[in-house]
Amino acid sequence: MSDALDQLKRHLAPIIRLQQIDGLLSWDQQTMMPPKATTARAEQMAALESIIHELFTSTKTAELLAKCESALADTDPNSDEARLVRVTRRDYDKETKIPATLVEELARHQAISHEVWVEARRENNFSLFAPALEKMFALTRQKAECLGYQHHPYDALIDLYEPGTTYADVVALFNSLKPALIALVKNISEAERQFDDSCLQGDFAVEKQHTFTQEVVQALGYDLTRGRQDPAPHPFCSGFSRDDVRITTRFDPHLLMKALFASLHEAGHAMYEQGTPEAYEATPLAGGTSLGVHESQSRFWENMVGRSYAFCKWILPHLQKAFPDPFAHLNALELYQAINRVQPSFIRVEADEVTYNLHILLRFELETQLLDGTLSVTDLPDAWNVKMQEYLGITPPNDALGCLQDIHWAGGLIGYFPTYTIGNLLSAQLRETMLHDIPNLETLIEQGEFAPILQWLHQHIHVYGRKFLPQELVILATGKPLSAGPYLAYLQTKFKELYAL
Amino acid sequence: MSDALDQLKRHLAPIIRLQQIDGLLSWDQQTMMPPKATTARAEQMAALESIIHELFTSTKTAELLAKCESALADTDPNSDEARLVRVTRRDYDKETKIPATLVEELARHQAISHEVWVEARRENNFSLFAPALEKMFALTRQKAECLGYQHHPYDALIDLYEPGTTYADVVALFNSLKPALIALVKNISEAERQFDDSCLQGDFAVEKQHTFTQEVVQALGYDLTRGRQDPAPHPFCSGFSRDDVRITTRFDPHLLMKALFASLHEAGHAMYEQGTPEAYEATPLAGGTSLGVHESQSRFWENMVGRSYAFCKWILPHLQKAFPDPFAHLNALELYQAINRVQPSFIRVEADEVTYNLHILLRFELETQLLDGTLSVTDLPDAWNVKMQEYLGITPPNDALGCLQDIHWAGGLIGYFPTYTIGNLLSAQLRETMLHDIPNLETLIEQGEFAPILQWLHQHIHVYGRKFLPQELVILATGKPLSAGPYLAYLQTKFKELYAL
Repeated sequence: MSDALDQLKRHLAPIIRLQQIDGLLSWDQQTMMPPKATTARAEQMAALESIIHELFTSTKTAELLAKCESALADTDPNSDEARLVRVTRRDYDKETKIPATLVEELARHQAISHEVWVEARRENNFSLFAPALEKMFALTRQKAECLGYQHHPYDALIDLYEPGTTYADVVALFNSLKPALIALVKNISEAERQFDDSCLQGDFAVEKQHTFTQEVVQALGYDLTRGRQDPAPHPFCSGFSRDDVRITTRFDPHLLMKALFASLHEAGHAMYEQGTPEAYEATPLAGGTSLGVHESQSRFWENMVGRSYAFCKWILPHLQKAFPDPFAHLNALELYQAINRVQPSFIRVEADEVTYNLHILLRFELETQLLDGTLSVTDLPDAWNVKMQEYLGITPPNDALGCLQDIHWAGGLIGYFPTYTIGNLLSAQLRETMLHDIPNLETLIEQGEFAPILQWLHQHIHVYGRKFLPQELVILATGKPLSAGPYLAYLQTKFKELYAL
Repeated sequence: MSDALDQLKRHLAPIIRLQQIDGLLSWDQQTMMPPKATTARAEQMAALESIIHELFTSTKTAELLAKCESALADTDPNSDEARLVRVTRRDYDKETKIPATLVEELARHQAISHEVWVEARRENNFSLFAPALEKMFALTRQKAECLGYQHHPYDALIDLYEPGTTYADVVALFNSLKPALIALVKNISEAERQFDDSCLQGDFAVEKQHTFTQEVVQALGYDLTRGRQDPAPHPFCSGFSRDDVRITTRFDPHLLMKALFASLHEAGHAMYEQGTPEAYEATPLAGGTSLGVHESQSRFWENMVGRSYAFCKWILPHLQKAFPDPFAHLNALELYQAINRVQPSFIRVEADEVTYNLHILLRFELETQLLDGTLSVTDLPDAWNVKMQEYLGITPPNDALGCLQDIHWAGGLIGYFPTYTIGNLLSAQLRETMLHDIPNLETLIEQGEFAPILQWLHQHIHVYGRKFLPQELVILATGKPLSAGPYLAYLQTKFKELYAL
């Protein structure tokens, strides 16, 4: 038995090492690579990815997998061994179900469609992008058919990012969220008390921002002997083994808070990857189990910790020391209010905690309609604007601030958006459970003692790597399935108090 | 005919892309990688290199090569097509002649031996290193036997770095150099006029050194849209396609000149790689043809340009502007004298132009004796010290400053040292020829007009990539075989004037 598994692990380890290298190539491209090396890098990645695909989908993988499946038939289905084989089977099936011709056509169209989208957004001209988007949804429908699904083609797509989650699951979550969120947004916008966040503006030297945010993420527990932080046009986290997990940050010279919260967010992702057990290194069990669970970790540190009053009390003296102007004149409550200002806005990535998930809901509803044909691509801008008005009470003045703002659909990421909301909901559900185990959570945050918090997340989430499906992991960590309840309760408590509703 | 060649090129292109990636992994390890990622990186590189070896030594390569060889039998042997096949054959034979078991044993012993050497050098204890060095030479003798040679096992080794060059060639070059160099060193040390280089010391902020050296190498013609410069513990140049050639620099906070000359040196390497014709990209013809020719490019910019009086006149105002202290009080002649101070010293990498090649001669003589058994490893320290006294008139006070100083032998680089001297000789031979084509060379340098110089090197060296063997290329570029004459003439003219001999 263990012989078959050893063979499989020995076969997979170098393939996983090559995948780690692919991640490094992409990190380097976005941080270090000279501008004219784009073509060479594309060729390098194509060569590497083709080898990875060839090795992973080889008959040898299939044979070793089958051998393990029969050898492990009587093993505890929750053992690492059985789970490693299940995860590998899932990955293998996904990688082999889509024919090579469609994979190539998708890759080619993604590249083209991305270019067209960049141009269309710059020109604020949706009609430039419409044909490419049309084709992207057509190809994605084909992809869903190849992958297979029980009820809705969307099931096949979301399963790529959030294994085991279905269209119906997402609908149910949003059904609980939607009315409460819309009502909360409305109540806040009509509240008498309103906050001004212009007090957060200033002149922040990028080098000093870099040093400051790096000290903060280290304080949280991000291990810089196994990671690094670099400036980049887009913030992201990228891991190439548990011992090499890097984050990037975009620094705005006038708004320190952007880099600060983005750093907390990416450090949350990074600590999840760094928390992979050593025994899982270079096996299919290494890394995060889904995008949603990953997002729960980044949002936990960004919002549950970073946007709390306790955190404001802890960080304010550090802010005042590093950046006397403008923070010398603020107190912790003013800081807390300013960073939690709720304001319906056009751009998802700049949205506050209350409005954020309505942006996701809108995208989820529209992409499912585009997928099943109940909405045509040409009608997308209008449909977008109608929903913006309905959910947030504002209408984008143009498509660049509307349906052209996100990179996802242009890159073929359809079925991806809900993972953001799943992450948000889970971050609050984890906090609710954590408060049972660590009742003095707020005091710890206020004192900058983050180790017990990281330890809890490590013990209940990180340590399992990809062993469990997200649904299993949520029950294991919180004792119940994912629901909107804890998140709504968190929002309502926090913002009713903030806005004196 | 072209069909067979096209197939070979299509087969090789992705393999070469993977080799480029391997270069990036190594660059990243030395510049960006977090310290604890060492093991993961070693595994990643092992996985990638194993795939590269497997693909390149596959029967498919052998078949396509044979097909091309017969298809191209009647083609002009100097055509790109015929040369591409010859270069591939050479690479293929080298890669397949050493059995996998010996490759592995060498790799394993290199890693161990390197560790032991680091320790022995730190402890200044040669006896710690002796057994590892003994084994390294034994394994290297086996390697030479596998590779095959006509007259001397050293022929097989130097051919790895300087294809087509033999032990006898190197002996002949050093026979012309040795007496003249020893005499010149002696004359200079006995000269009445002596220079002091303490005027070059100061406090140089690393950030400012970085900016300054970057501006200088850009002025020479190093294209930073296809390259970058980073701080690293060791200066090196690393190319991953002609459009991505990076250099590193070590910054000493008290000696700007170290970083400046190291930058010129590495930029010389980089401009060679950047000068690869676009048509050679991702073919076996891309890159430099040998280490010696590569070193001729780095030494040309470092010494023939950088250590000239004309260059001092050009750079002095820039130095004075960026670092008023200490350069405000120097004139160009004083700068020229200070950077050209000749002083026998223990450490090769710090040696001046006159003494440098005697350091190499010593290593060449000792490594050939260690290889053919006429010197035993235990006698190495004494033999080293005797030769230091004979060639440079000084005796190292300990082995850390003597036979333990270089990383090369510990890493299995035996047969490598002469390429440094070949590069030095060629840099002067290129200068001699260039002066016929560009008689106003010194004026151009003084005016900072480096483009015609780079253009000349591009046209006579870079543009050929690996198409010609070094010996062929030297004749093509300078009209005659490599000899010590131009270098000795250059040294004698320059230093007789400097030291008023």
